[in-house]
Amino acid sequence: MSDRREFRDLASPEEAHEVVAGLDIDPAPETVPLADARDRVLAERVDADIDVPGFDRASMDGYAVRARDTFGADEADPVTLSVAGEVHAGEKPDVTVESGVVAEISTGAVMPPGADAVVMVERTTETDDDGVEIRTSVAPGDNVMLAGADIAAGARALGPGTRITPREIGLLSALGVDEVPVRGRPQVGILSTGDELVRPGDPLDSAAGQIYDVNSYTLAGAVAEAGGNPVMYPHAGDDYEEMERLLHEAADECDLVLSSGSTSASAVDVIYRVIEERGELRLHGVAVKPGKPMLVGTIGDSAYVGLPGYPVSALTIFQTFVAPAVRDAAGRDPPQTATVSGTMAVQERYGEGRRRLMPAGLVEDETGSLLVYPVDKGSGATTSLVDADGFVDVPPGTDYLAEGETVDVTLFSPAVRPPTLLGMGEDDPLLSRLLDTVSRPRYLPLGSTEGLRRLGNGVPDIAVVAGPTSSDHEATDIGGWQREWGLVVSPDTDVSDLGDLVDGDYRFVNRDIASGLRRSFDGALDTFGEKRGVGRAELIDAIDGYELTTKAHESPARKVLAGDADAGLGLRATATKLGLGFVSLGTQPVRVLANPDRREKDSVTEFAETIDDIDSLIDGMAGMEPQ
Amino acid sequence: MSDRREFRDLASPEEAHEVVAGLDIDPAPETVPLADARDRVLAERVDADIDVPGFDRASMDGYAVRARDTFGADEADPVTLSVAGEVHAGEKPDVTVESGVVAEISTGAVMPPGADAVVMVERTTETDDDGVEIRTSVAPGDNVMLAGADIAAGARALGPGTRITPREIGLLSALGVDEVPVRGRPQVGILSTGDELVRPGDPLDSAAGQIYDVNSYTLAGAVAEAGGNPVMYPHAGDDYEEMERLLHEAADECDLVLSSGSTSASAVDVIYRVIEERGELRLHGVAVKPGKPMLVGTIGDSAYVGLPGYPVSALTIFQTFVAPAVRDAAGRDPPQTATVSGTMAVQERYGEGRRRLMPAGLVEDETGSLLVYPVDKGSGATTSLVDADGFVDVPPGTDYLAEGETVDVTLFSPAVRPPTLLGMGEDDPLLSRLLDTVSRPRYLPLGSTEGLRRLGNGVPDIAVVAGPTSSDHEATDIGGWQREWGLVVSPDTDVSDLGDLVDGDYRFVNRDIASGLRRSFDGALDTFGEKRGVGRAELIDAIDGYELTTKAHESPARKVLAGDADAGLGLRATATKLGLGFVSLGTQPVRVLANPDRREKDSVTEFAETIDDIDSLIDGMAGMEPQ
Repeated sequence: MSDRREFRDLASPEEAHEVVAGLDIDPAPETVPLADARDRVLAERVDADIDVPGFDRASMDGYAVRARDTFGADEADPVTLSVAGEVHAGEKPDVTVESGVVAEISTGAVMPPGADAVVMVERTTETDDDGVEIRTSVAPGDNVMLAGADIAAGARALGPGTRITPREIGLLSALGVDEVPVRGRPQVGILSTGDELVRPGDPLDSAAGQIYDVNSYTLAGAVAEAGGNPVMYPHAGDDYEEMERLLHEAADECDLVLSSGSTSASAVDVIYRVIEERGELRLHGVAVKPGKPMLVGTIGDSAYVGLPGYPVSALTIFQTFVAPAVRDAAGRDPPQTATVSGTMAVQERYGEGRRRLMPAGLVEDETGSLLVYPVDKGSGATTSLVDADGFVDVPPGTDYLAEGETVDVTLFSPAVRPPTLLGMGEDDPLLSRLLDTVSRPRYLPLGSTEGLRRLGNGVPDIAVVAGPTSSDHEATDIGGWQREWGLVVSPDTDVSDLGDLVDGDYRFVNRDIASGLRRSFDGALDTFGEKRGVGRAELIDAIDGYELTTKAHESPARKVLAGDADAGLGLRATATKLGLGFVSLGTQPVRVLANPDRREKDSVTEFAETIDDIDSLIDGMAGMEPQ
Repeated sequence: MSDRREFRDLASPEEAHEVVAGLDIDPAPETVPLADARDRVLAERVDADIDVPGFDRASMDGYAVRARDTFGADEADPVTLSVAGEVHAGEKPDVTVESGVVAEISTGAVMPPGADAVVMVERTTETDDDGVEIRTSVAPGDNVMLAGADIAAGARALGPGTRITPREIGLLSALGVDEVPVRGRPQVGILSTGDELVRPGDPLDSAAGQIYDVNSYTLAGAVAEAGGNPVMYPHAGDDYEEMERLLHEAADECDLVLSSGSTSASAVDVIYRVIEERGELRLHGVAVKPGKPMLVGTIGDSAYVGLPGYPVSALTIFQTFVAPAVRDAAGRDPPQTATVSGTMAVQERYGEGRRRLMPAGLVEDETGSLLVYPVDKGSGATTSLVDADGFVDVPPGTDYLAEGETVDVTLFSPAVRPPTLLGMGEDDPLLSRLLDTVSRPRYLPLGSTEGLRRLGNGVPDIAVVAGPTSSDHEATDIGGWQREWGLVVSPDTDVSDLGDLVDGDYRFVNRDIASGLRRSFDGALDTFGEKRGVGRAELIDAIDGYELTTKAHESPARKVLAGDADAGLGLRATATKLGLGFVSLGTQPVRVLANPDRREKDSVTEFAETIDDIDSLIDGMAGMEPQ
């Protein structure tokens, strides 16, 4: 692969911007109906082709007059003129206004021949004999909008590059323009290249390592947002001939073709070969984490950009390097809401000197200022897409970002807005319902102990803890509830207490060590062990699956439901929801603790009020009680 | 009309907000394909239905091992294990990792049975005999993403009310969700009720007082922007039975029906009758200019809002009172870019004490701060839509807004952005080309004298003046050109000099007094009169049409072209463009003058550079010369 060898050094981000800007992805202009013109960009200047209005137009209800007939008239000394007829809007006048004569006229109507002004109806009185008494004098042109006074034929109306919003639609309407010349949207082909990928909606074979294709739809959304027209090509899986055919097809049909990293060397080889045969590789790798896998080149008349495979990386590199080019080609300005500024909520250290685009989350502090915290969930977590709001460009050689340091965050999308309430801690089905009452919450189910720890570091607004907890950090309890916990068991199983689990031959599924359920379970084991006179270690050894931990409150129960386990640690609410059996081992408190500094933040106050009224949310949820 | 009598007092704006908020325009939720979900709003919570990943997944290329087999291994003391096979992404493992055995594994592949960690390939060396030397120790779980570690089945993924941006599309993709439950878009029917209105694209009979319908498409754009689905109904013109039928149809099909003021009493009567028969009138008139004509009520199960008829008024009242309700019904948050703050560039006095929504334009000063200036082009000017950027809510009883006072401007649309360059003054075809090179310019063709006056008041960045000018105000000349002016004449006419126009029986069309062309023309008349020994007044009397003035540089020529005049004041460039004859009366300078404070503003500097290079823009335009 000669091309690969040419790019020993990674390009700088500045070089990458230049290389991408040098690609030709400009689409041909097109014409769209006025009804579809919103948010498009004018391709050329639009001059007025007609006068608006097209006639001298009454701008008041009243009487069309010869102004000189009213000279000298006032309240004390009105003049009486003869009414020769009337003119309504949308009618051709059939009356001529001669000296001493007027015509009744409606707002918007054509001024009749001879008339040069309108007296508003409020300054007139009809007389019995088809006359009208006029109690004011008017000058020529009064209450008349002359033809072309709004905009005259030949005048410049809208310039090329104008973004069409409702008001521009209004002006185009006034000019009678119903076909609008607009910049084309660049056609952006999206290819999906991983052997293991399956399109959402298709059946997934997890045992064969299949996962859903995240990048195709995500990139399609980001392309559309930047003003491009995404074209998704079918997924070729591990059929490399089909993939090559699709790559050719996409290059022939599109202005730009995108793919995102493949874990398959064969897929990468196909892409290299097609670029070598029909185009040119212009860049391989950018010296910014996560830009190392980025490829830029051409295939025939189309541009090609290869993005990293992990979803957060793909969207980050797209927004940084590709979206500006798509916007330029579509004639769009950079969105005003694409970046925000905030201060680091915590210190973040860096072990290596590389420049990086660090995923970051946002939260408002008690004063409404934005705090920024790093989000690092590790390789390829798709939830980072929604746990972070964007990314911070951290220069190379940065040892750390200090707490309180100001940073700019490029949002994953201009439509992203920071969460109103940031919570971390235990997961719980009633908590899910509570969160549904909040507009734009973010909740990270890290477990009770981790939630408490992060609350102590000052990042979240609230932590939710369940079961026995201890913390040195100050926190303000804003309410909570009780939940019944125990063993969620298969209906076919005769587990009826903890002793059965220990003594019998059952497959068990546990929760992770950070969860409050786990700590209550371990406490119950200790109590059980004391009664029986054995240590916890012995009991643990006796429980098949004690080490098999899961991250979410429903996970053990779902394994029971799937027949993969006989019993799982969980809640009565879950057992009832899934139609499984339940062995109660106790109740535990779930407490919502607020960062004391944020207690008065609107979203925290509202959340506390919602918890006060939790009865209505419990609504039959089994095993849940107000505190 | 009993309903009309019930509303003697205008409602306060607060009452109007309440009445509109009390309308039920909530649409039913719906399900859309993932590819169409961008910018929609989730109707319900989405919990994960599957574990992501669905299997224990290698997160590095390397070797899947039993961690305990590597304990103690390091660079100095590697351990050699036997390679039993390999696992690629998207494959079901066909190898089991027993003690002493490893499997080669690709990033994303399923961990084979028995393995609990991955050693990254960089810390290994293949040996000749199907073995691998491992130079590091790993702990269980190292370089493995456990099933459900990204998000576990049963966990809360996205809450109701979440706006779907590309990142949410990513998470939905990961969960395999290809049909997304979203809030419906409220169906908003738009009725057009003026007898005189014609839909853009249809032929216009100006003599009969017809004008293009501006509000229907404008409101449709604003409805779509607020998250509604606009439904435009055919224009019924003066067929009131058809209009009544359409009103019933729209009410049956839509959540909300909008119409905008009609100048026809009959049309208003139809609306009143339908509301009386099938619903309830809840509000008539709001005590804010221009809200007096506003109507709010119900027709059957639909809500109804009647808006003022003038385009700026209709859009202003829609954005103020109706858009929030449409957004609420669609589940949208208020847009971040809906309002901006700026300081008044000039003082604005008010003669009456009414609360008003004052149309206002924006311009950036030399420091990038926003200045706000009132735009009052009088009744019903559609160009105010693009000459203003939005409106300022001026409280009742306000005598004046002071220069420098801070005001908030609600933009006509969240997509509106202030102009980069604000110019006022003479209109000119070469200037139109110059403006085409600027991104987002605003140019008001008010004539040279008015442009100069406004420059003196400190509002525009530049004024463009043609012909003889005088001004006491300081201004910085940044360049200009010469243009040849004279009489644009019909090819059938034998006007060959000014004398012919004075002595012959020709129909002439003049320009308005503010234009530089007009002042040069008057100067030429003075010179001609001196030669002939007569005053200007006598010459004016002799020219049929001297008082017939037009506002744009092409207007007189267009009247000649249309056969409505024999000669018009204009430019050689226009005569050549329209294929008309031309009698040269001289050349005049066109100068671009900058506000001295804004000379260094980027857009002004760039404009000056473009003028320096004006040769390339003249490109054969007749009668134009660099300065």
